[in-house]
Amino acid sequence: MSKVAIIMGSISDMPVMQDAIDILKEFGIETEVDIVSAHRTPEKLFDFSKNAHIRGISVIVAGAGGAAHLPGMVASMSPLPVIGVPVKSSNSIDGWDSVLSILQMPGGVPVATVALNGAKNAGILAAQIIGSSDNNILDKIISYKEGLKEAVYKSSKNLDK
Amino acid sequence: MSKVAIIMGSISDMPVMQDAIDILKEFGIETEVDIVSAHRTPEKLFDFSKNAHIRGISVIVAGAGGAAHLPGMVASMSPLPVIGVPVKSSNSIDGWDSVLSILQMPGGVPVATVALNGAKNAGILAAQIIGSSDNNILDKIISYKEGLKEAVYKSSKNLDK
Amino acid sequence: MSKVAIIMGSISDMPVMQDAIDILKEFGIETEVDIVSAHRTPEKLFDFSKNAHIRGISVIVAGAGGAAHLPGMVASMSPLPVIGVPVKSSNSIDGWDSVLSILQMPGGVPVATVALNGAKNAGILAAQIIGSSDNNILDKIISYKEGLKEAVYKSSKNLDK
Amino acid sequence: MSKVAIIMGSISDMPVMQDAIDILKEFGIETEVDIVSAHRTPEKLFDFSKNAHIRGISVIVAGAGGAAHLPGMVASMSPLPVIGVPVKSSNSIDGWDSVLSILQMPGGVPVATVALNGAKNAGILAAQIIGSSDNNILDKIISYKEGLKEAVYKSSKNLDK
Amino acid sequence: MSKVAIIMGSISDMPVMQDAIDILKEFGIETEVDIVSAHRTPEKLFDFSKNAHIRGISVIVAGAGGAAHLPGMVASMSPLPVIGVPVKSSNSIDGWDSVLSILQMPGGVPVATVALNGAKNAGILAAQIIGSSDNNILDKIISYKEGLKEAVYKSSKNLDK
Amino acid sequence: MSKVAIIMGSISDMPVMQDAIDILKEFGIETEVDIVSAHRTPEKLFDFSKNAHIRGISVIVAGAGGAAHLPGMVASMSPLPVIGVPVKSSNSIDGWDSVLSILQMPGGVPVATVALNGAKNAGILAAQIIGSSDNNILDKIISYKEGLKEAVYKSSKNLDK
Amino acid sequence: MSKVAIIMGSISDMPVMQDAIDILKEFGIETEVDIVSAHRTPEKLFDFSKNAHIRGISVIVAGAGGAAHLPGMVASMSPLPVIGVPVKSSNSIDGWDSVLSILQMPGGVPVATVALNGAKNAGILAAQIIGSSDNNILDKIISYKEGLKEAVYKSSKNLDK
Amino acid sequence: MSKVAIIMGSISDMPVMQDAIDILKEFGIETEVDIVSAHRTPEKLFDFSKNAHIRGISVIVAGAGGAAHLPGMVASMSPLPVIGVPVKSSNSIDGWDSVLSILQMPGGVPVATVALNGAKNAGILAAQIIGSSDNNILDKIISYKEGLKEAVYKSSKNLDK
Repeated sequence: MSKVAIIMGSISDMPVMQDAIDILKEFGIETEVDIVSAHRTPEKLFDFSKNAHIRGISVIVAGAGGAAHLPGMVASMSPLPVIGVPVKSSNSIDGWDSVLSILQMPGGVPVATVALNGAKNAGILAAQIIGSSDNNILDKIISYKEGLKEAVYKSSKNLDK
Repeated sequence: MSKVAIIMGSISDMPVMQDAIDILKEFGIETEVDIVSAHRTPEKLFDFSKNAHIRGISVIVAGAGGAAHLPGMVASMSPLPVIGVPVKSSNSIDGWDSVLSILQMPGGVPVATVALNGAKNAGILAAQIIGSSDNNILDKIISYKEGLKEAVYKSSKNLDK
Repeated sequence: MSKVAIIMGSISDMPVMQDAIDILKEFGIETEVDIVSAHRTPEKLFDFSKNAHIRGISVIVAGAGGAAHLPGMVASMSPLPVIGVPVKSSNSIDGWDSVLSILQMPGGVPVATVALNGAKNAGILAAQIIGSSDNNILDKIISYKEGLKEAVYKSSKNLDK
Repeated sequence: MSKVAIIMGSISDMPVMQDAIDILKEFGIETEVDIVSAHRTPEKLFDFSKNAHIRGISVIVAGAGGAAHLPGMVASMSPLPVIGVPVKSSNSIDGWDSVLSILQMPGGVPVATVALNGAKNAGILAAQIIGSSDNNILDKIISYKEGLKEAVYKSSKNLDK
Repeated sequence: MSKVAIIMGSISDMPVMQDAIDILKEFGIETEVDIVSAHRTPEKLFDFSKNAHIRGISVIVAGAGGAAHLPGMVASMSPLPVIGVPVKSSNSIDGWDSVLSILQMPGGVPVATVALNGAKNAGILAAQIIGSSDNNILDKIISYKEGLKEAVYKSSKNLDK
Repeated sequence: MSKVAIIMGSISDMPVMQDAIDILKEFGIETEVDIVSAHRTPEKLFDFSKNAHIRGISVIVAGAGGAAHLPGMVASMSPLPVIGVPVKSSNSIDGWDSVLSILQMPGGVPVATVALNGAKNAGILAAQIIGSSDNNILDKIISYKEGLKEAVYKSSKNLDK
Repeated sequence: MSKVAIIMGSISDMPVMQDAIDILKEFGIETEVDIVSAHRTPEKLFDFSKNAHIRGISVIVAGAGGAAHLPGMVASMSPLPVIGVPVKSSNSIDGWDSVLSILQMPGGVPVATVALNGAKNAGILAAQIIGSSDNNILDKIISYKEGLKEAVYKSSKNLDK
Repeated sequence: MSKVAIIMGSISDMPVMQDAIDILKEFGIETEVDIVSAHRTPEKLFDFSKNAHIRGISVIVAGAGGAAHLPGMVASMSPLPVIGVPVKSSNSIDGWDSVLSILQMPGGVPVATVALNGAKNAGILAAQIIGSSDNNILDKIISYKEGLKEAVYKSSKNLDK
């Protein structure tokens, strides 16, 4: 079965990244979670990136703040799709630093970037990637979107009262 | 076999989006290409988005400029992974408009955003998504990355002369 | 009699959008209010946009945050004037995302954009649009502007004390 | 019959503002065009703004660049809907100055802002405002949007060849 | 004797603008203070701007937030030096709107812009302008700068303890 | 008679700064022009700043690009009003660097900042400062503004033909 | 033995700059700390900058906020490496002002800029500069980096529990 | 003797980075130049970073564009001072991406960042770092600064003619 690795540059990114873990659990997709710091544990970064696809990981979700190099460096060494979550850290310049250092990857090495602090969407995107070849997950995504719709209709109805 | 749909908001986006078509051809992945404008052909947008996964599409690449709503609107209606390419159109405010209107999707509806004008990376990412469940494509991506590496070593050698 | 529809992408936009409802009430203009999410209820978006002018709506006010596609998508399907209110949502990049994804519409599909969180001005603009062919409302706007003026003169006088 | 006034801060804005004149002509809507500079002809600004609605103008389109005060100052004195076109002038800081000084109007005095250099959309928006109480113009807008759609379908077909 | 007029667009700007009043009092320069709103009291704006130099005002300090048109509009009608204070109002886009709509004036109509919320510096600049032809004030400015220097030396000494 | 010093950080700023020299000549105001680099000739910066008011200078216009420290450093040492011209140099980040490093001076040390490349306005502002205590120059400024007005009326008339 | 001077524009920068002092103490490197304001104590700036290398200082760390001229002005007069710390002061425009006025130095006069409020990194960089010719310090840096690594491994292990 | 390594992410960065090579040659400092791509040759990045200080390198200058991870990743693995040069590549968002992804490094791993395209300053800074413990180089820097000064005086004299 497909498995998603969720890594982050620092334990301080966990409050944001938890959303990715939670939504993947909701979809019944197995996850593994770890701290991998591009700047403080470069050897672990190498080991992780080189071996993830061999260890049975299908998709990698990587979150980091500031000059956020983790998602791009993982993408440079892994053939798997890498989803980058720009985290708005303290001392960030309004989040622009993490957004741009994850998004603006050079030709040849893409990172699938989601919104600032958008870990929930990173989890959903990981599920969609798995769903693109797994009808069971695809159906769950279709149901999930139905749920989003119903919630809006409900809040619309409450308005009428 | 997996197939990638490449759509764009206007024929004027083609010079940028051609890079996605070319790289997917290089990976031997089947593509279909079309103009779907969120703002000028909303019915076509609906038809396309609702049916892409039924018609056998695995991944959608959508490019648009300015207030770029195409990728996000496709993502709102398709369960497939949608890759967004911010195109720097004329009268764009330095590309910020297309980047932000593709990237900053609300929770529940992700778009996998790549760099400004990064259609080549969108194509590679589409291939990686397919490769996450298709070892043949995964191997091609590993080879592709080897090729990138060799090109750098070659340019490094030329430096020595 | 003319009627203004006020829609928003999420119930969380209501604290901002309430200002539009209040000011239109002040002008004695009928309103209808609803939640229409471009990304979560695309079918409702279609129904609303295609039929608003048939149902007797004269002007549409649409508020949304982040990658704010609601105003532009309504404008793509309705012949009515659409006023867009960029809402500064949580995780917004300082409001730039909603401002640019509402303002920078491509040629052919305008959205009348007001200031960040400027729902009050959206309501006044809707009244002005109605007033451009309805002398009763026009007179109310002239009075309203007189009221603004008097308030400044009053605060100026208080300064003297 | 409804009439739209198109004013601009300087003759150098004409290449951009011509698009508004042309599209209104296409809709068969009468226009008057003038140079009114907030900073160099403040008396003319006053006369124009105070009297436009008395002279039979229904909508005002105002274009200006840099610290663009024309649209907002007209809006402060006229009860009519004012559409602001941010013009990207030379020495502009990438257009941000004109966009922000037109868009960010204080509560009470709205300007309907369109995209940077978006004079064409200003013209269409003026037509939509007239169309909100004039079925003849409303029908023309519906037709215009049909035309946009057909153009996309045509370019889509050309792609197939 | 020279006199400085300090005006602001709204009473809500007073907490910022008070700094200009205080520092001018410190320099023994006479001030007059008023609320003049470009957008809500355009006639007052005209009267004030046309007559300030006739009434014996030497320098005008004008503070405003958002799409801040007050300093530029006063400058368009008065031959006096106008100092603009960008005020960071609520709903401002980080202050960029007031900074750019005061700073980026077109050729012919300068506004002497100071830092965001920099009313104190506006007051000092007004004093310097008067001091450029009044040796008494010039001497006070020289003393003031000496005072700034001494305060730094004192805080430097406290460091040593 | 009053005299204006026009200094710039590099001879490469001359094409921009020439506008200040020209307009001051037009007003019949004496100027002296020099290159003073804060970063390359700090001793000259000191001499210039400490002595300008003693040598009979009334106003200082200082232009610089990039991390533009010249205007602020002159202001730190001279009691005269200092007008700063942000110059858009090559390798500038769109002019933001020179604008912000001139504008955002700390409390106590103002720089009267004009628009990016706005040397013409710096010259006019210098004239207005002199005019605030010199009726002859004040009259010339009033005439100058009349000239601006007439030019607009002329271009408006040409439009009619 | 090598010594690092840590200066700042105002005592209000101390809470940020303390991190540089602390980390250098951790590396056993001697420091001297002072307040030197480019704008309020220009003579002290001159004395400090001209003599630091003569007094036995090896590296200068300079922190300042807003239009931050201190690091660049020190660099203009000292032959030593100058490390600039952009401090996010109150009334800063999100820190952009201090970042750009420290970073964007003209050719010939570099400032080694670190992240916004990055005084800790300024201290480490100062140590690395000393370590580039002092093996004792180089070894301490290698150990320090080992410590960073171990802390990540520890937080990774805690995750497993 | 001290030696500076100059590396860059791509041969396309050479036109910018050549300035660093040239100025170091002018100071008589030995250099080695190579292409090391963080994203395409991660193994070479590891080898280079881990061994530079062992091979006798004293300072590393690293240039890169877009999501520029090279300087930060080298800094994560080398104990030497790393100078980062943000290169404005094609498809860059005005250079902001490379500036922020080099500058905003997390606590513990500094990169000494210079101005956009500021490779010349990177070379001078490398020389200053060597000069901080090598009087011969320190003297050359003092002379170099004298040369800068004389060039300004010369251009100032030419002005007089």
